Order: sequence, then structure tokens, then C-alpha cells
Amino acid sequence: MLPLYTFASDNTSGVHPQILAAIIAANRGHAPAYGDDSYTERAIALFREFFGEDIEVFFVFGGTGANVLSLASLLQPFQAVICAETAHINVDECGAPERFSGCKLLALPTPEGKLTVEAIRPLLARRGDPHHVQPKAISISQTTELGTLYTAEEIRALAEFAHREGLFLHLDGARICNAAAALDLPFVEFTKNAGVDVLSFGGAKNGMMYGEAVIFFDAALARKFPFIRKQGMQLASKMRYIAAQFLALLSNDLWLKNARHANKMARLLAEAVSQIPQIKLTQPVQANAVFAILPREIIPLLQQRYFFYVWNEQTSEVRWMAAFDTTEEQVREFAAFLKNELEREA
Amino acid sequence: MLPLYTFASDNTSGVHPQILAAIIAANRGHAPAYGDDSYTERAIALFREFFGEDIEVFFVFGGTGANVLSLASLLQPFQAVICAETAHINVDECGAPERFSGCKLLALPTPEGKLTVEAIRPLLARRGDPHHVQPKAISISQTTELGTLYTAEEIRALAEFAHREGLFLHLDGARICNAAAALDLPFVEFTKNAGVDVLSFGGAKNGMMYGEAVIFFDAALARKFPFIRKQGMQLASKMRYIAAQFLALLSNDLWLKNARHANKMARLLAEAVSQIPQIKLTQPVQANAVFAILPREIIPLLQQRYFFYVWNEQTSEVRWMAAFDTTEEQVREFAAFLKNELEREA
Amino acid sequence: MLPLYTFASDNTSGVHPQILAAIIAANRGHAPAYGDDSYTERAIALFREFFGEDIEVFFVFGGTGANVLSLASLLQPFQAVICAETAHINVDECGAPERFSGCKLLALPTPEGKLTVEAIRPLLARRGDPHHVQPKAISISQTTELGTLYTAEEIRALAEFAHREGLFLHLDGARICNAAAALDLPFVEFTKNAGVDVLSFGGAKNGMMYGEAVIFFDAALARKFPFIRKQGMQLASKMRYIAAQFLALLSNDLWLKNARHANKMARLLAEAVSQIPQIKLTQPVQANAVFAILPREIIPLLQQRYFFYVWNEQTSEVRWMAAFDTTEEQVREFAAFLKNELEREA
Amino acid sequence: MLPLYTFASDNTSGVHPQILAAIIAANRGHAPAYGDDSYTERAIALFREFFGEDIEVFFVFGGTGANVLSLASLLQPFQAVICAETAHINVDECGAPERFSGCKLLALPTPEGKLTVEAIRPLLARRGDPHHVQPKAISISQTTELGTLYTAEEIRALAEFAHREGLFLHLDGARICNAAAALDLPFVEFTKNAGVDVLSFGGAKNGMMYGEAVIFFDAALARKFPFIRKQGMQLASKMRYIAAQFLALLSNDLWLKNARHANKMARLLAEAVSQIPQIKLTQPVQANAVFAILPREIIPLLQQRYFFYVWNEQTSEVRWMAAFDTTEEQVREFAAFLKNELEREA
Repeated sequence: MLPLYTFASDNTSGVHPQILAAIIAANRGHAPAYGDDSYTERAIALFREFFGEDIEVFFVFGGTGANVLSLASLLQPFQAVICAETAHINVDECGAPERFSGCKLLALPTPEGKLTVEAIRPLLARRGDPHHVQPKAISISQTTELGTLYTAEEIRALAEFAHREGLFLHLDGARICNAAAALDLPFVEFTKNAGVDVLSFGGAKNGMMYGEAVIFFDAALARKFPFIRKQGMQLASKMRYIAAQFLALLSNDLWLKNARHANKMARLLAEAVSQIPQIKLTQPVQANAVFAILPREIIPLLQQRYFFYVWNEQTSEVRWMAAFDTTEEQVREFAAFLKNELEREA
Repeated sequence: MLPLYTFASDNTSGVHPQILAAIIAANRGHAPAYGDDSYTERAIALFREFFGEDIEVFFVFGGTGANVLSLASLLQPFQAVICAETAHINVDECGAPERFSGCKLLALPTPEGKLTVEAIRPLLARRGDPHHVQPKAISISQTTELGTLYTAEEIRALAEFAHREGLFLHLDGARICNAAAALDLPFVEFTKNAGVDVLSFGGAKNGMMYGEAVIFFDAALARKFPFIRKQGMQLASKMRYIAAQFLALLSNDLWLKNARHANKMARLLAEAVSQIPQIKLTQPVQANAVFAILPREIIPLLQQRYFFYVWNEQTSEVRWMAAFDTTEEQVREFAAFLKNELEREA
Repeated sequence: MLPLYTFASDNTSGVHPQILAAIIAANRGHAPAYGDDSYTERAIALFREFFGEDIEVFFVFGGTGANVLSLASLLQPFQAVICAETAHINVDECGAPERFSGCKLLALPTPEGKLTVEAIRPLLARRGDPHHVQPKAISISQTTELGTLYTAEEIRALAEFAHREGLFLHLDGARICNAAAALDLPFVEFTKNAGVDVLSFGGAKNGMMYGEAVIFFDAALARKFPFIRKQGMQLASKMRYIAAQFLALLSNDLWLKNARHANKMARLLAEAVSQIPQIKLTQPVQANAVFAILPREIIPLLQQRYFFYVWNEQTSEVRWMAAFDTTEEQVREFAAFLKNELEREA
Repeated sequence: MLPLYTFASDNTSGVHPQILAAIIAANRGHAPAYGDDSYTERAIALFREFFGEDIEVFFVFGGTGANVLSLASLLQPFQAVICAETAHINVDECGAPERFSGCKLLALPTPEGKLTVEAIRPLLARRGDPHHVQPKAISISQTTELGTLYTAEEIRALAEFAHREGLFLHLDGARICNAAAALDLPFVEFTKNAGVDVLSFGGAKNGMMYGEAVIFFDAALARKFPFIRKQGMQLASKMRYIAAQFLALLSNDLWLKNARHANKMARLLAEAVSQIPQIKLTQPVQANAVFAILPREIIPLLQQRYFFYVWNEQTSEVRWMAAFDTTEEQVREFAAFLKNELEREA
């Protein structure tokens, strides 16, 4: 039997039916290519309803592209990005930021995937000295790669520090919908209003087929981006199909319903597995991720039935993700399966 | 009234209904991300039916990505790509090849967008001399950016020369379906069997929503590609939706029907406009593109109704593209519109 | 017998005795590394005597470094440099500009290695369109790679055009001393005062051991350069030895005497060989280079005794360079040798 | 009074008189440029006497160039270099490795600047997974940036591990002469014979003016290097002057005498300052560096008279370097000055 991918990642899900319907509806007639179409125009207008008029929005193919091109638009190659050691840009993008931007990442160990001003400050000691890369941006993930959340105040503190020190604040929002749902805050409150300069707004992990948005909260920072996007191989020719998806995602609270549901399913899973004595949750479950340490030897057996990622081979910590289409029944079955297998092994 | 994009490009078309249907059908349940799904497996198998078992196939988001990553996988940064001055990689990709690969393009003027051994040979004079970039690949487009075609023999001659000289032959097949239809040859005959090493196989210009394939005819050349694709920001998480499109395109001769139709519409357009005395066709119409010189002053007027690209501002040469969904009626109306406007101006 | 390198290039010469003496004199005690020493301070002050107070001067190891880092400091990777097809940056630097800066070079064919506004203008047609690299600098060489000269007026015309169009003007001055001597003009007249923005000021081809200077005529453009120089591997630790050389070169008119002599020897050589019927001079001899077409078959024979570069294999055009240490006797012997060999072959 | 640079770094020293004499002697007549001269030939032959016939040697301008180009010649951009957190390539080269090679550095915390197999092994866990950079080289420094030494056995253990795992071992030998003197071993014993693949052999920190050597112990790895060197802006035109310096350095044990002396002076300094109660040595003094923690407030006062680098602002750790020209008298005066100032403050 093939393994199930139910909890492997929120990108093993399919496309939400309303988003697929929007794609189908957009498939009519000819439309200008490369974003000069009316869908793109309307999707950008819709983003402006969420974030304010004075922003610039660009659609790209994927999340790595969104992060890398955002950062490349903010930094010169001799400058550096400060991020958490666990950051997607640091670990999971095969060195794409370094290769495309030429910049170094300065990665900090963190307790829950979250940066703090205290941890960052020492990295600024050698500014002005040409022997050392010059920090110019802080990049945070919301939710973090450990499924945790920054409060709006924590983000504001980082942004104020960043701006006081002449740095930009970038937010990797691959799971920004889950964050907004969990914080019960409008997007704008913990991004633009908290001082974020550039945002990667993710779609694929919350029910879209493909497509992310790069949002500049200071339009002046966006001037180079059209060229960077094309040179960065992220300019879709038939862009209306990305735009149509965002129109659906951001309409009728679909983004919120999807994210709330995923978060709820993660909590349910956390509750269920926390009853199992051999399983130890390792991170606060604040959004749609559950991190846990399992007995090492059981992992391959579990993976035969349910594929999921081992997060840390050394500690035998694993990650389970819930998605918009995860069902309560799936959660219960999975928890039961874990319990059974662990008991059988014991 | 908004201008029509009917003849602006073959990427202003929508998605072919059968391809959209395949996307819809693929939207079921969870699937492994990043290409470990069964759709991708089957799509690759289908490509192998066309090109033989001993190939490697990778899906990427777009055509620029396909070209740039193909070339980056073949060359070291001190090596160079020989291409036509009109090549998409040279003109239309905002320097993406140079930025990502570090390589220089050595661009040759050509009569009809086609390279020849005679034109290329002098570029090899300084091999071995570290002051000069070292040519390591020839890149051709089929169909060319001027809508013309290489015969299989012409490609074979270039490949034999390339291999004799230790170079690779890359083919930018953004419109490879139009080429195969026009040549009335299987893909394999003018690619792998003619000596092409790596192929960018285009989908978006023949009815797909997004997605291209990079095909290595020597599997050994493909070993680095999984990493280059990820580092090059071209690894789709929900890859099944690209694969499903290719499955539809390559099944039931859909690719061929689409391409034949587009080519036929271009011929029809060429015939129609060749009756108009003020219009001079500038390139042989061999596939789905029509190039023509118009009276300079009329162009902006025409563009108010039909948007199309001016190919050469200095000679007032324009480009009209036909697509899978261009209708005979659209062609006739457009030709009539051109005729009318030109007469009215006269 | 080993071949002589007398006319191969002006970098086959040794170091001028006064420059070597300056190195020896600088070899006293400890000095701060990386340019914080008093020699560097004084050498920069001396450059300011030539060019005015409001400039920034940086020393680098070599000419390729000077050119590449100059351009990288002016351009973003999606921007492009317009240069002559024959430019050193385009032909002789193994793609260093593209690799380090990510930028594309837009190379124009030229009659005598010199760009003109008329030739450049069409390259600006697609500004603002993200599909195309965006020209942002013009780079000229003075003297050119063909040994010819721009007049100050010609440079001014290019600079005015450049600035009107929002471009920078870079001057590759690997042989700027020969140019100033030939024009009989102060450096400043055909650089800063003519509108040049950034200058690579060459030393090695006029009697130095190593070392070039990058000079910014607008200090604001120089702000990033200290970091670019280090990241570009061009920051010398014991910089006093480069500075001491420039102090010697720019004192007591040494630069001028050296350059005048080299230019004179080239003229002498041109006169001598112009008497030989089988030799056809191909470029005006305006500085220290002589270009000539020889009977193809004689070249390898000549090179057995005197090594020199074949400039164009197809036309059998060769290049002979004179240097500060070329003697009249060497010129006469070489011309006699050429004459003899050509007669013997006839 | 200006501060003294006596102990700031081993590159604040001048050029050793015998090396300067060799430069002067090389300044005769014309010589082929770019390394085709007889000095370069002889210097390479001399390196082969030290390391064996089957090596390839290339001269470059500086140490950053040597390290960066070495690594770029071994790795593809999606691969990674494992190094100590304190490594020069990680901290002191302004991101040059990342920018030029595109590669990521995976930097490990270390006790004394030295890597171990145990520390490295976990970094290999995700090989084969395209989401992660692929470790392909280990880079160590000998002596380390903390003035410590690897034994030949420690290097052999790293090399055997590296090769077993398909990695290369690079050695940054900016201070390799100090290491060889301290270990009392021939260079070859702790480099080639211990399994090092590529070596940056430093000159400037042991009495040369400029110039480093990149040595490939497997000639097959060197094939691309001539092009990488030129594209990397590290090809000296008048290369004879680098070669002549290496000829002098490697003749008559000059390298050894210089290094032994520097090491001895560091030991002397360490002994002297270890008598001062407010000073705490922080690293074993194994070569020519002394690391110490001082009372924070005294540092600026000391630096008014003797400039030196603060190594760690947070712990107020400083670094003092001895060089070939450091005298016993200078050491004693400096130690006395430290003692005095510290007492005066107390």
C-alpha cells in the first residue's frame, strides 16, 4: 500500500474547489500576458483593500522565488540577511538566496524559530568594516518553520530595531493565513502596521495551485522589482491564472476559513497525540504544525503508512502539518494509528 | 474600447479545455509534493514514449527558467553560449542567463534567426586561452523567434559540428509543437535523433496554463539538475498540476491538433495580408508567426484596436502570432481591419 | 632561441627604475594594512591634484578588477553596459564582468574601436520593459583597444548623451597615460571635465609592477566601493606598495615621459613598416599600438623570433605595442627583421 | 603620536629584504605576460620540489582570491563548504565566497578554530535532497584563525572522512609557513600526504609584498583553474614579480627562518603577558598569534599607542600577531607598556 501524505505538508493538499472554480472562470478569451490583464489588476486592488493603497504587489510562481527576489531587491551582494537558523531561506531553498543575490545569510540559533533584538544586536558590531558582510535585512517567518507565532508586538519591536539600525524587515509569509487566523488579527496589523517592509504572501500552502505575492509596503522599494522578477525567472506569462486564484482566496474569507480549519486540525492532532506517552510535543502548537519526538526506531514503520518529514534526525523529532482539507476523521485515524503502532512496538 | 490581444502572442490565449479538464481531474486528494507524485511519474513516462527510455525529464514553471537552468546545467561560468542575436535567451529574458549562470552569450547576426556552422566557426578560434570565454554550447530555437524552421538536417549539421568541437546543443522549444507540426516530423526526429543534447519543451504557448519540461537526452548530463532546479527557484510544490497538463497535451494528439491549427491560421493571415499593398511580409511564414513591415505611422492606430508587438522600431516591422484558439473569422476580421485602416490613412 | 617579447604588449616590459626605487623606499617599518597607511593617503592626495578634491580613489590589484568592480558599483544585475565589440571588458576578461556583476554587455561593432551616440541610441529603445536588460552605463576605452583616441569633445558628447538618458559613463583607462600624452591634454580634461563618471586608471601598462586605481568623480557613487572591492577580491593587504608606485608614476611627469616615449616608438615603428609593401596598417597610429595586416603564412615564422598577438585570425591582422622601455634600436631591428623575412618569403 | 602597528597583524610588516632583492633582480628586460615567463616556470618547479611533481600551481594576487577561486574550482553553486565559524572565508572576506561561487558556507562553532569529523558528520544528513545545499568541501585553516594548529593526524582524519564521503578538503594556508615551522614538519606532510586536495599557500603574511599560490594536489582538479583565475580577476599580467618572490621565499629556508622567528616572538609575548594578572590568554599559543582577554575599558587606551584588533567585542578578547620582523625588544617594550597601562588604570 502506498503511504498517505495527509500530514506530510500543507502542500500535499490539492486546490480548494472555489479556487479551482476561479481558474475555470478565468479561462475565457485572450488576455494580455505578463500581468497586464484585468484579473491581475483586480487581484492587486483586492490586496490593497487588505493592506492599503500605498503598496506594490507582484505575483511570482513560488515561495522560494518570492523570498529570494524580495531579498535581492533590498540588498546589495555585499550585504547580509539575518535570519533564524531554521528559516526556510537558510535551510530549505538549496542556497537559492546566496546564488541569486550573492548575499550571505547570518543565521542565528533560536528557541522557537523566532528572532529577538537581543540575539540580533551583536551581528551589527562590524558595520562599516569592508572585511565583513554588512547586515541590511532581517527576515522572519510567520508562522515560523516551527509552527510558532510572533505577536504583532514582537514584530513591531524587530521592525523598530531594524529601522533604527538602517535595516529592512522581510516577512516570509508562506503560511501568513494560518498566522492571521491564529492571531485573530488582520494581515495588516502584524505586517505593514508593525513595520514590515516586504512580505512574501503565500498561496500554495493554503489551497492555491501555485503562485505567491511579493508585497512592498514602501512603493519606492519596488521600483526594481519588475526587472528582478523577470531576470529571476518568476514572471508568469499567463498571469491571470495566478491572479484569479488570489481573487478567490481573498474573497468571502476563504483564506480565513481554510487557515482556521487547518489550525484547528493541528490542535486536534496535538491533543490526540499528547495522550500517547511515547510522544513528546516539542513546540507550542500555535498554527497548523505539530512537532514531536518519537522513539527513533518506530519512525520508518510509521512512514510506511503515513509519509511525514523527520525534522531532526539526531533528536528523532518529526513534523506533522494540517491543511485546509484535513478532516477530523483523518486526524483521529492517524492518532489511533500512531498509538497502535507505538503500543505494538513496546 | 480595449484593444484585442488576439494576435499579440500565443501566450495571450487561455488554456485548452482538455488541459483544463485534466487539471480538474488531478484535483483529488493528497499527493506527494515536489514531483514525487503519480501524475509526474506518468507524464515523464509519456515523454519517454515520444523520445525514448533513456532520457531524463524535469518540469519547471516557465520558459525562461527552462532555458536558463538547461544552460546552467551544461556550462561552467567561464564558458559561453553561442546563439542567434534574435534568440529569446539573448533578447527577451532580461539577462537571466548571464545572471544565473554567470556565462556570456555570444550572439550572432542571422538572416532568418537560424545559426549555421559557418557563422559559428570563427567564435571557436580562441579556445584554450584563459583571456576569453570558452564556447561550450550552441543554443537554437525551434521554431525560431522569427517564426522560421530548422530542417532536421540543419539541426543534425549543427549537432555534429558541436559534438566534434566538444560543445553541447541546446534547443529552445518554446514552440516545438508548432515546429513538429510544420515539419510533419515526430519530435524525436529533429531533437534527440538529430543530436540535440538538452531541450526546453514548451507548454504555455500551445494551450497550457503554465509549465515547461527540460529534457536531457543524455541522462548523465541531468545529474545536477534536481539541485539546479531548486536553487533556480523552479521547483513547483504541487507539481501534479504541471504533469497533468502535459499528460493532456501529449495525449490524443492534442499538441498536434493545436499546433497545426495555429500554423494554419498564421498561413491564412499571411495570405490575407499579402494582398494588402502597404504590407510587406519579411520572414517566410513556416509556423505560427507572421512578420511584416507596415507604414510606421499606422501602427499606433492599429494597436488601439489590436494589440501586437513592434519587432523592430527602426524598420517598423511587427509580429503577429496565431494560437490554438485563433479562429478563421478572427483572421479575416483582422485582415479586413488592417486593410481598411491602411486605405483610410492613404 | 627564445622569441623576444619586445612588441607583444606593454605589459611584457618590466618596472620603471623610478617606480622600483619608490617601492624600495616604501619598505620601511610597519604600516597599517588595507590602505590605512600614509603612502595610500599621499597617493590619493596626489590623484586629487590631477583630478580635483571632490573625487574618491581606490587602489586595486589589476585592470580587470578595476573595470569589473567599477561597473558592478554602478549597475544592478538587470542593467546592461554598452561597449564596443572590441572592448577589453567584452573580449579579454573571460566573462568577468558578467560573472561578477550579473550584467549583460551590449557590444556594438565600431569602425575604430570608438562608440558614437548614433550607434548607441537604438539600444535604448526598450527601456522600462522588464523583458529586456536595461542599459545603465556606457563604457569606453581610452586609448581604445585599437590604439585609437577619442577627442575630449567626442567623450563629452557621449557623456552628455549618457547623462541625458540616465546612464553613467565609464572609462577604461588601462592606457590613459598614452592617451593624455597623445592628446597633449591633462587627464582631467578628457575624463572628469568631459563628463566621465568612473575611471579605471591603469598603471601596469606604463611602467608599474601591479596596481590600478578606480576613480569616482562623484563621491556619492563611491559609497559601496570599499565593500565591493573586498568582496571582489581586490583589496591588497600591503597596499602601501601600490600607492608608492602611483606616487612615483605621477611625480616629476614620469607618467608623461613614459607614455610619450611609448607613443613615439609606435609612430617610429609605423613609419618603418609602412615602407614595407606586404604590410598594410589597418588603424590610425595615435598612441602606442600599431595594427597591421601581414601575409598570413609569414606570421608563424615571424613569431619564432618576435612574439606578438594575432588580432584577427580571419584577416591576419596583428598588433604590435610599444612601451616605455622600447628603444629606437629595437624598433629598427624589428622593422628590418620584418622586411627581411617578408622578402625572403617572396 | 601615531599608533604603532607592530602587533596588529603579520601583514603590517614590510617585505623581507631577500624577497625585495629578488624582485629587483627580476626587473630585467621583457618577459612574457600572464605567467608564460621563466620566473613563473622556475617558481612552479620549486613548489614541485616541496610537494612532488604531480601538482599544479597557480599564482594569484591575494589570499581572498586564493581561497575563493580554490573553492569555486571544486564546487558547483548548489554545493556547500563546511568550515569553522571563525574561518577567514566565513568572517573576513565580505561574502566573497558566496558571491563568486554562489555556494553556501556551513559554519560550525569550534573550540579552538578546529573542525572535527564528529562536528561535521551531522551536516551530511540531507545529501541527495534537492531542497538542501549539498556539502562538497571541507575548508580548514592552518594555522587557524585562532593561532592554533591541526596535527598532521588530525588533518588526515578529516581528509579520510572527506574522501570517504565524496568531499574535497581545502586548506587555507595563509600562515602555512608558521604552521610548518611550529609542527616542525615539511609542508607536504600535513597537506598532500595528509590528504588535502587544494591548498592556498600564503606569501604576504610571511614577508612577501603580494601574491599567493593555489596548489592542486590532483592535477585533474586544476583543469578549469586558468579560466577561473582570469574570470576571477586574479591573473597578474607581470606575473614574474610574484614568481620571483616565491623563489626567494622558498629558497635557503627563508620561509622557515621567517616563520620560526615569528612563532618565537609570539611565544615570548605570551610568556611576558602571562605574567600580567589582568590579562588572560584564551588560546594555546602554537604559532604566531596571541589571543587574550583584557579589561574592556583599557583597550582604547592601549590602542592609542599600539593598534591591534579586538577579536570579540563581547568578551573583550584581543589578538596580537608577531611577524618575521618583530624584534625581542619590541615584544618586551609592548609587554612593559601593557603592564604599565594596566597598573596605572588599576
